[in-house]
Amino acid sequence: MRPTITAFANSPDRGRGLARDTRVRWALEEVGQPYDVRLRSFAELKEPAHLALNPFGQIPTWEDGEVTLFESGAIILRIAETHSGLLPSDAAARSRAIMWMFAAVNTVEPPIVDRTMVFLFEREEPWFEARLKAVEALCRRRLDQLSAWLGEKDWLDGAFSVGDLMMISVLQRLGSSGMVDDYPNLAAYVARGEARPAYQRAFAAQLAVFEAAQGGG
Amino acid sequence: MRPTITAFANSPDRGRGLARDTRVRWALEEVGQPYDVRLRSFAELKEPAHLALNPFGQIPTWEDGEVTLFESGAIILRIAETHSGLLPSDAAARSRAIMWMFAAVNTVEPPIVDRTMVFLFEREEPWFEARLKAVEALCRRRLDQLSAWLGEKDWLDGAFSVGDLMMISVLQRLGSSGMVDDYPNLAAYVARGEARPAYQRAFAAQLAVFEAAQGGG
Repeated sequence: MRPTITAFANSPDRGRGLARDTRVRWALEEVGQPYDVRLRSFAELKEPAHLALNPFGQIPTWEDGEVTLFESGAIILRIAETHSGLLPSDAAARSRAIMWMFAAVNTVEPPIVDRTMVFLFEREEPWFEARLKAVEALCRRRLDQLSAWLGEKDWLDGAFSVGDLMMISVLQRLGSSGMVDDYPNLAAYVARGEARPAYQRAFAAQLAVFEAAQGGG
Repeated sequence: MRPTITAFANSPDRGRGLARDTRVRWALEEVGQPYDVRLRSFAELKEPAHLALNPFGQIPTWEDGEVTLFESGAIILRIAETHSGLLPSDAAARSRAIMWMFAAVNTVEPPIVDRTMVFLFEREEPWFEARLKAVEALCRRRLDQLSAWLGEKDWLDGAFSVGDLMMISVLQRLGSSGMVDDYPNLAAYVARGEARPAYQRAFAAQLAVFEAAQGGG
């Protein structure tokens, strides 16, 4: 059965591919799985029909006829476990790929999301500059550590996996800050992910949604 | 082979069970897997021997002879996948249990950790009260949503699973704030987890480490 995901009808990132449906689209494109998209307005995210799919009122969600899921990490792991190409077959390498997914969402992403929140909600506060400096220091510590680990490798651990897909998706959220560019190996790593044909198709698909919304509005 | 985890030699939570080794110990106790613990001082976390296990310099780590891991989520999933008792056998229910792990670490935990950071690093700042109010509002939004989902159920989705283990472990980090107590069903949910014999053994094991460190210091 063709799975259905939800995505923003009018993404607040203005089509830059930073909403969390893009990483799910990317995983689906990597394994060659066609999918349908149900678009949600912000008002619809708070309605019972959506909260039944995700009690936290977020996108993306996932329906494949067997299971309904939310959380991009869980959805991507489901895609990887039911198709070949995103998880190594060796059991130890598979556990490490999943480890990098958790590292992306639980260790690297939190200060990066905080930085975005500071810009969104604390820009007019008297403490804006001090807070931004503190949260960017936390981001840099994670980038230092990740850069040291990556070294000259193409991917985090052997072949491209869900761990790389998730980590690159997280690093993209620093895009406009220029912080990733201070680490040439991390910038090359993100570019390597973005050059994959599957990513290109996923990016184009989410951008088409945003552009259609602009044309219609 | 008996696995080895790392934990703080002298936990900053003073034995309250909030460091992330406790959730791994809990998973090991649930499945009846004996384990060894290697204690690390804060200085040792920054040394090459530890960074080889976890490039982000955190505890816990995991070595089982087949694979070396970090990230409590990945370690707990590894334990659940190689033992019975923490993941449903039905494929759809299994995906949902993993979904709740990601929801715990990626949706519920970030504002809770932020609240701790505000207390640790912004207590003396002029903006402390305003920031605390903002971050507690974010915590409450997640608690509202989680409480609405849980309703009168004992566990998040059917039988106790890794999803509950992780979610309860995350909610415990709000312990001293009293915020969870404002939601009787969530307070009962946390108490239900803490009453499990496996949790009791895990808590006692981490407390014994802290008490030994105090006695020795």
